[in-house]
Amino acid sequence: MSSPFKFEVNHQAAANGPRTATFNTPHGPVRTPAFMPVGTYGTLKGLTPDQIRATGSTMILANAYHLHLRPGHETVRELGGLHRLMAWDGPILTDSGGYQVFSLGHRCRIDDDGVTVKSVLDGTQVRLEPARVMEIEAALGADVAMAFDHCPADPTDRAQVTAASCRTHRWLDRCVAWHRAHGGEDRGQALFGIVQGGAFEDLRRASVEAVCAHDLVGYAVGGVSVGEDRSSMAAALAASVPYLPADRPRYLMGVGTPRDLFDAVALGVDLFDCVTPTRHGRNHQAFTRSGKLNLRNLRWRESTAPIDEDCSCYTCSHYSRGTLRHLCKAQEMLAGTLLSIHNLTFFHDLMAAMGRAIENGGLGELRSQYAAAVEG
Amino acid sequence: MSSPFKFEVNHQAAANGPRTATFNTPHGPVRTPAFMPVGTYGTLKGLTPDQIRATGSTMILANAYHLHLRPGHETVRELGGLHRLMAWDGPILTDSGGYQVFSLGHRCRIDDDGVTVKSVLDGTQVRLEPARVMEIEAALGADVAMAFDHCPADPTDRAQVTAASCRTHRWLDRCVAWHRAHGGEDRGQALFGIVQGGAFEDLRRASVEAVCAHDLVGYAVGGVSVGEDRSSMAAALAASVPYLPADRPRYLMGVGTPRDLFDAVALGVDLFDCVTPTRHGRNHQAFTRSGKLNLRNLRWRESTAPIDEDCSCYTCSHYSRGTLRHLCKAQEMLAGTLLSIHNLTFFHDLMAAMGRAIENGGLGELRSQYAAAVEG
Repeated sequence: MSSPFKFEVNHQAAANGPRTATFNTPHGPVRTPAFMPVGTYGTLKGLTPDQIRATGSTMILANAYHLHLRPGHETVRELGGLHRLMAWDGPILTDSGGYQVFSLGHRCRIDDDGVTVKSVLDGTQVRLEPARVMEIEAALGADVAMAFDHCPADPTDRAQVTAASCRTHRWLDRCVAWHRAHGGEDRGQALFGIVQGGAFEDLRRASVEAVCAHDLVGYAVGGVSVGEDRSSMAAALAASVPYLPADRPRYLMGVGTPRDLFDAVALGVDLFDCVTPTRHGRNHQAFTRSGKLNLRNLRWRESTAPIDEDCSCYTCSHYSRGTLRHLCKAQEMLAGTLLSIHNLTFFHDLMAAMGRAIENGGLGELRSQYAAAVEG
Repeated sequence: MSSPFKFEVNHQAAANGPRTATFNTPHGPVRTPAFMPVGTYGTLKGLTPDQIRATGSTMILANAYHLHLRPGHETVRELGGLHRLMAWDGPILTDSGGYQVFSLGHRCRIDDDGVTVKSVLDGTQVRLEPARVMEIEAALGADVAMAFDHCPADPTDRAQVTAASCRTHRWLDRCVAWHRAHGGEDRGQALFGIVQGGAFEDLRRASVEAVCAHDLVGYAVGGVSVGEDRSSMAAALAASVPYLPADRPRYLMGVGTPRDLFDAVALGVDLFDCVTPTRHGRNHQAFTRSGKLNLRNLRWRESTAPIDEDCSCYTCSHYSRGTLRHLCKAQEMLAGTLLSIHNLTFFHDLMAAMGRAIENGGLGELRSQYAAAVEG
């Protein structure tokens, strides 16, 4: 049986430079560079699948750890799997929970085999081990399952990062073994490995080597955008991305801002995810080429202009800044929905523009057109 | 200039019996009997205009009092009026605030000329008088403006009801004078009068007479569904509705449940509004022919059935009860949106079914098909 996954580079001017590609999954193709919106509990907050699709989303992300806690992965399986639950027939990727468990301050006890964490819902002990996480992700049934990794809380603490990398590699062996033993990609679910190594170039290089020793459908760079400064992040990326196999999708986890996206796309990263557009939307911030707008600002009270004259999203086609300000001030839930729609459209439009710019050799020029958004 | 409003009765088997009609407004026709969803602050909570329209809504209601407080009626005018604010190009009706001011427990001082009320937003004094309310509603620019009335808090207190009716009639004179002096219907806005009279048949009859002395585009019955028992409400309706002009739309304000709708349609009422479908939706209750469902109930945990197999709404086409239960339990805002969509569709489908039944002489049979919903 041939793999239902295929990655085709469409355009790449130079080795280790920016590229456009198509990542084919059992639920359709993803044109990269692409941004994946985050639907932690099986929905983007406040958006229906029709609204999500209209923003330009193709592949979306959900969190295996959260869905394991609620409603439970077996319940999701009984309900027909994550695609049915999310009413999303496009590609889905599930994060394994490594980031949530280690970085979001849950009380957890870690050992060489896994982690014991107290559920935020009811205080019960939850045990996560590589095989268990694979089992959870298999029950959810996303197109891509992320390996269970250890994301160190402080990427500048060498001892901590070393230990986390070692665990990540050992756990990846177990994830791969479980995945192979359960049909591999033929089951319709690919496994992506995750590179760690914190802010240390040698540890990043070593982690790339260990992770890429496994022949996987795709590879991710984890442990960035966890609070480190910009130069540490740049160094971590420079020591990771160029060494990942050129013929596989490269996914930078949890990133990011327009600036981060330009930086990483220039290095040849294909996939991204971040809560930024939806979370900022719920907080009444709108992304534009001219920088972020705070829609609660008094200056928009009687503004009949849309957020962005050139944006074709539902929000910009139907609502003025003045109306949006009113909806924000009145704390109407529709405000979060409308601003999430605009922000996701902004991010997807940006990625599509990057793709065209890569094919026309004008990525630098595009970045200068987005200068205010990049600096914001 | 001929009036942009026209009311045509399409079918009526017997005088003072149920009827179907078309109420033509500057923003299009409303086929009655019709249910108007409530968008207090200029939006139905959590629904875009496209979603609202897809439920079958034609005319929607907004609250002049709330919009006067926030964002302010002059601001709404600057933003292009209520149709632009709501991004709704269909008919809109604005409630005048009489009900809100007197019945929702705001601290207010009433006199013969109007009412002084403390803003719930910032504690400032707001003065409402008939001409002022007409001015506010004119600035908002809905197709129908309701007259400023006095809705008594206790419909069984004869002295209170008598005083409120007298004020309502005196204030209606002033509303009519203001409306005439400012172009009448030719401006594109009709004025509806409101009958009061509480639970007293003679006061209801007297109020109908006083209100209908004015030649208005439509007439409403107010002061019902304010906590009185079912027989008081039935008596109030029986003493009001049959005496309203047969060639004008009849609007029963703030009603109601499927049972109330069947009762009032049988008497010849054409228009209704209520927060029930959207408020119940946000509280995770779904209306069905078999009665209300609580979507938080454990029994739906692994249910792959939609809320209603026969419902064609977006929610029933895309989501199982199990998924909806998960979204409710996870307190996802999407749950409120999806259940509001279903409930509004249920209400509009019910009104459309009533219209067909009226034309086929089978309203009683339809009611028995909805017996569980009527009893629920």
